[in-house]
Amino acid sequence: MPHSADRGPRVHDQHGVAGEREQVIATARAAKDVTTQLATATRATKDAAIVAMADALDTRADEVLAANAEDGARARAAGTAEALVDRLSLTPARLAAITTALREVADLPDPVGEVVRGYTLPNGLQVRQVRVPMGVVGIIYEARPNVTVDAAGLCLKSGNAALLRGSSSAQASNQKLVEVMQDALVARGLPRVAVQLVPGTSHAAATHLMTARGLVDVLIPRGGAGLIRSVVTESTVPVIETGVGNCHVYVDSAADVDQAVAIVVNSKAQRVSVCNAAETMLVHRDIADEFVPRVFAALREAGVTVHGDARLAGYAADSADASRPSFIAVTDEDWAAEYYSLDLAAGVVDTIDEAIDHIRRWSTGHTEAIVSDSVVAVEKFVAEVDAAAVMVNASTRFTDGGEFGFGAEIGISTQKLHARGPMGLPELTTTKYVVTGHGHLRG
Amino acid sequence: MPHSADRGPRVHDQHGVAGEREQVIATARAAKDVTTQLATATRATKDAAIVAMADALDTRADEVLAANAEDGARARAAGTAEALVDRLSLTPARLAAITTALREVADLPDPVGEVVRGYTLPNGLQVRQVRVPMGVVGIIYEARPNVTVDAAGLCLKSGNAALLRGSSSAQASNQKLVEVMQDALVARGLPRVAVQLVPGTSHAAATHLMTARGLVDVLIPRGGAGLIRSVVTESTVPVIETGVGNCHVYVDSAADVDQAVAIVVNSKAQRVSVCNAAETMLVHRDIADEFVPRVFAALREAGVTVHGDARLAGYAADSADASRPSFIAVTDEDWAAEYYSLDLAAGVVDTIDEAIDHIRRWSTGHTEAIVSDSVVAVEKFVAEVDAAAVMVNASTRFTDGGEFGFGAEIGISTQKLHARGPMGLPELTTTKYVVTGHGHLRG
Repeated sequence: MPHSADRGPRVHDQHGVAGEREQVIATARAAKDVTTQLATATRATKDAAIVAMADALDTRADEVLAANAEDGARARAAGTAEALVDRLSLTPARLAAITTALREVADLPDPVGEVVRGYTLPNGLQVRQVRVPMGVVGIIYEARPNVTVDAAGLCLKSGNAALLRGSSSAQASNQKLVEVMQDALVARGLPRVAVQLVPGTSHAAATHLMTARGLVDVLIPRGGAGLIRSVVTESTVPVIETGVGNCHVYVDSAADVDQAVAIVVNSKAQRVSVCNAAETMLVHRDIADEFVPRVFAALREAGVTVHGDARLAGYAADSADASRPSFIAVTDEDWAAEYYSLDLAAGVVDTIDEAIDHIRRWSTGHTEAIVSDSVVAVEKFVAEVDAAAVMVNASTRFTDGGEFGFGAEIGISTQKLHARGPMGLPELTTTKYVVTGHGHLRG
Repeated sequence: MPHSADRGPRVHDQHGVAGEREQVIATARAAKDVTTQLATATRATKDAAIVAMADALDTRADEVLAANAEDGARARAAGTAEALVDRLSLTPARLAAITTALREVADLPDPVGEVVRGYTLPNGLQVRQVRVPMGVVGIIYEARPNVTVDAAGLCLKSGNAALLRGSSSAQASNQKLVEVMQDALVARGLPRVAVQLVPGTSHAAATHLMTARGLVDVLIPRGGAGLIRSVVTESTVPVIETGVGNCHVYVDSAADVDQAVAIVVNSKAQRVSVCNAAETMLVHRDIADEFVPRVFAALREAGVTVHGDARLAGYAADSADASRPSFIAVTDEDWAAEYYSLDLAAGVVDTIDEAIDHIRRWSTGHTEAIVSDSVVAVEKFVAEVDAAAVMVNASTRFTDGGEFGFGAEIGISTQKLHARGPMGLPELTTTKYVVTGHGHLRG
């Protein structure tokens, strides 16, 4: 998940604007009140509404872009870094990509109503475990207007009401996007409040959302480590943690060197601002002499700065880019870092156990990769590394709902409850046991 | 630059006995340190250890019963109600039932290693979603020594380390039970710390457990509403809420009256102290004249006091038991009550929608039942009632891991995340994606 110094909505203030709590609660209650209607809406109704949302966003693109331009101008006036303004900015092409993604959501299978398990007990009771919507899903995210539309589409498709809490810096964009989508919902006979922005942009407003037990069924924070930590700490509503990734690539003594070089570079540098990019490389000592000079050359070529341990220092060479060192001594902060930049922590290990121990200490449980041709080493790594995804001879960058064939992704869970790894539509549902008898009594 | 130097277990310092927090954290860390060994233990190893635990508890029954007698004497000396002392007390027969249940856990299939999904992507990447243990599971429960053994067995079978936090009133029993089980674990080559009591019996000690992020993977509170609420509010570790049940039986206008009478009485009175017992009966007005006198007679016979609305008052008759009224006027507290006693709130509704609205307002989302021969009514009730289990023409008492064929139960989840309804062994696991390529890079 892209990251920036803008960690999105901070949530430390406990006391906000008078009446703000009531507004947030009223918004959540309005969502709760339509959950039955949404849960029982047919796939045809939901899909038509999602396509109508996409059509409306296309038709009213000028309004959306104008609102977004307001946000951009405000951000620039406030001295926001140009990279962040860019992340916030919509263009006709970006908006078209967003509505295309929305139409793809409409094409996905409906998760609601799937019978996950079904059997008949010896006493004749018929037990079915059926997928049903969560109810009200809250999403807390950063200044990325595309999340507003993605989350609305995924929640609606899975029969959930969406409470969207974006960054104040995208407020005009989000208000316009939601207004346009709401108009489309109403035109298709679905309730306007199926998709809502959470009122207020203060930190306290977010806190009200996080403590709306009984009204909000699940909260999904999407953003940097600070945002996620504050939601986990403050929320009394169940939370699915997403996205923080300190991913490692371990190059085993039995690695194919060509493969290993390519996988390290791809994992680190193919896109640096995402949670499934690699942040640390660990190399088995027995392959270091052959592998390290090759990978260092490739990393230098890609503009990567290696933060390496003492055993790697001997392989260091001058930088290809005079403005960037190619090698710096590593610190504990580097082992912990999610750089989201062209930096890579690196070290030599004597054994695979040492690599696994290192990963156990520093991993955020997102994605860990091994490059090895050894069945024993691969089995050991897969069994002993505790992460949402373990890659074998493949780039860490593949941990992604789209790559996994889910068609859409609400985030990548790094917790163990409910969902772990990329979350698609089924992860936005829960189940209900339906048990049918003919007068069955417990004896 | 690294921005996230904070890694590893996050534990907030709280009030409490000096050194107690360190003890709790040390206990949790010891558990965490053996998670890899437990996760990779074979089924044969785990089953042998569980059987050895049962054998040891049988062999050392005298020690266990003596420790339990201490707890009982202490409770009586403190003036504890005899019903609670009874719940705390072990007898040779109760202990035998506990070890029998443990052997049944050994006979259950191992959930670890199950491939939940597996497919090959168009690019040739092989994706497998594999069931793996959670890691460290904390159970916070009341004065029921059987939970100590049940939870230990279920955690071990599912490859998890167990951190058990029981009631101080069962402390001597729990210490002895855990000591005996630990000795059996060690004799079978598994680590003693696979099953541990959390040190300290203060509330602060429990708080330390609830905030041991990074060391405890999931907390399962088993007990009354107060315990569960405090865990949900205080915990920063993910929690699975269990067990609170305000269950309703709705008798539809199209109900078979004989069935309805039997189901209401069975749901209410077959066993009153359990979460799947019914607490409220709702009757459609069109069947009231025929049904209510019959059910009132049967409830009176069973010793049940009905807390009824005004429309039911006319059907009330004298109590069969002079010491207990058979009818009292209902209040809002009754609609909210989980009596766990021979009391039943009851009312007449004009429509099925009114019944569903009532349930939506008062339900705890555990089990809701409809008695009806109408396909339309049943479909509506099943679709619109939001609960872990919906019973159709069957007693609410069937919501139970044993009844569902799970063979064992760690609790009944009333939340929507991760697990909903009775939780067996699979619900004590999470999954890991294992993705295998041959040098795959993201393009």
